[in-house]
Amino acid sequence: MIGQFLEDFAVGQTFRSGRLRIDKERIKAFGAEFDPQAFHTDEEAARDTIFGGLAASGWHTAAITMRLLVDSDLKPAGGIVGAGADEFRWPRPVRPGDELRTESEVLEVRPSRSRPDQGLIKVRTTTLNQHDEAVQFIIANLVVRRRPTQRGKETNITELVDRAY
Amino acid sequence: MIGQFLEDFAVGQTFRSGRLRIDKERIKAFGAEFDPQAFHTDEEAARDTIFGGLAASGWHTAAITMRLLVDSDLKPAGGIVGAGADEFRWPRPVRPGDELRTESEVLEVRPSRSRPDQGLIKVRTTTLNQHDEAVQFIIANLVVRRRPTQRGKETNITELVDRAY
Repeated sequence: MIGQFLEDFAVGQTFRSGRLRIDKERIKAFGAEFDPQAFHTDEEAARDTIFGGLAASGWHTAAITMRLLVDSDLKPAGGIVGAGADEFRWPRPVRPGDELRTESEVLEVRPSRSRPDQGLIKVRTTTLNQHDEAVQFIIANLVVRRRPTQRGKETNITELVDRAY
Repeated sequence: MIGQFLEDFAVGQTFRSGRLRIDKERIKAFGAEFDPQAFHTDEEAARDTIFGGLAASGWHTAAITMRLLVDSDLKPAGGIVGAGADEFRWPRPVRPGDELRTESEVLEVRPSRSRPDQGLIKVRTTTLNQHDEAVQFIIANLVVRRRPTQRGKETNITELVDRAY
């Protein structure tokens, strides 16, 4: 598998994605399966809620953000593997027809103390709509491989995440 | 809409969900749509990855967690409306056939300084598999209505989240 190793990342690097449009039917279908509340599933009933109309589930926004990242130039060797996030916010609702894109910046690059074959990068990703308004912020910790010549024994994800925190 | 108002929540309250089984086909379908990486979409190719086999996208786990919460006894008036999260971790992969459930605890209950009609509760939710192993931790900030007799003018979600941080 090719891609970027820990040694290829540096603080301040940025990555941008393409765009994905979120339509009304997908908002409702995602809502029906995972977040069945009126503001995600029913346009009429949504009007009398805090959202004042149909809005995507925040988890739908998060999932679309992941899709945008996977399709972007951020390509860690071994894949985009998240151990978790330090901060996560939805400052504004996502509406039917919105077109989303992401901007990411590397905040930290850190080899693992206990595993010579791995490291962590901290990446802040902002998801924006077509008006360049932020709809999601996340600061995620991603597990990244070190360059193979410097690798020792492979570890598994559970051991690695245990050590990361 | 009925449900729990800010005044009905107290630090230390706990809520438990039912169970939801996550099957292989849904893991792959979610992966194909939102997180198209080998370890979420292809059993064979997944063996040579950090996960050592097919695993659900963390966003699928998060979405199922939301579904479990919506179906649980945690029923804030106005719905479960997340402003964001302070901490978010996936300590262990979710595998095909796993049965997930949630345990939630209220950590903080706080009226809004600027909006007499609203408040925030901080809730830690652990998602567990059928072996009682944690697969996700999240500490989320939920927007909750105050009891109507104490409400002033309604606000909208964007204003509210702006003020929450």
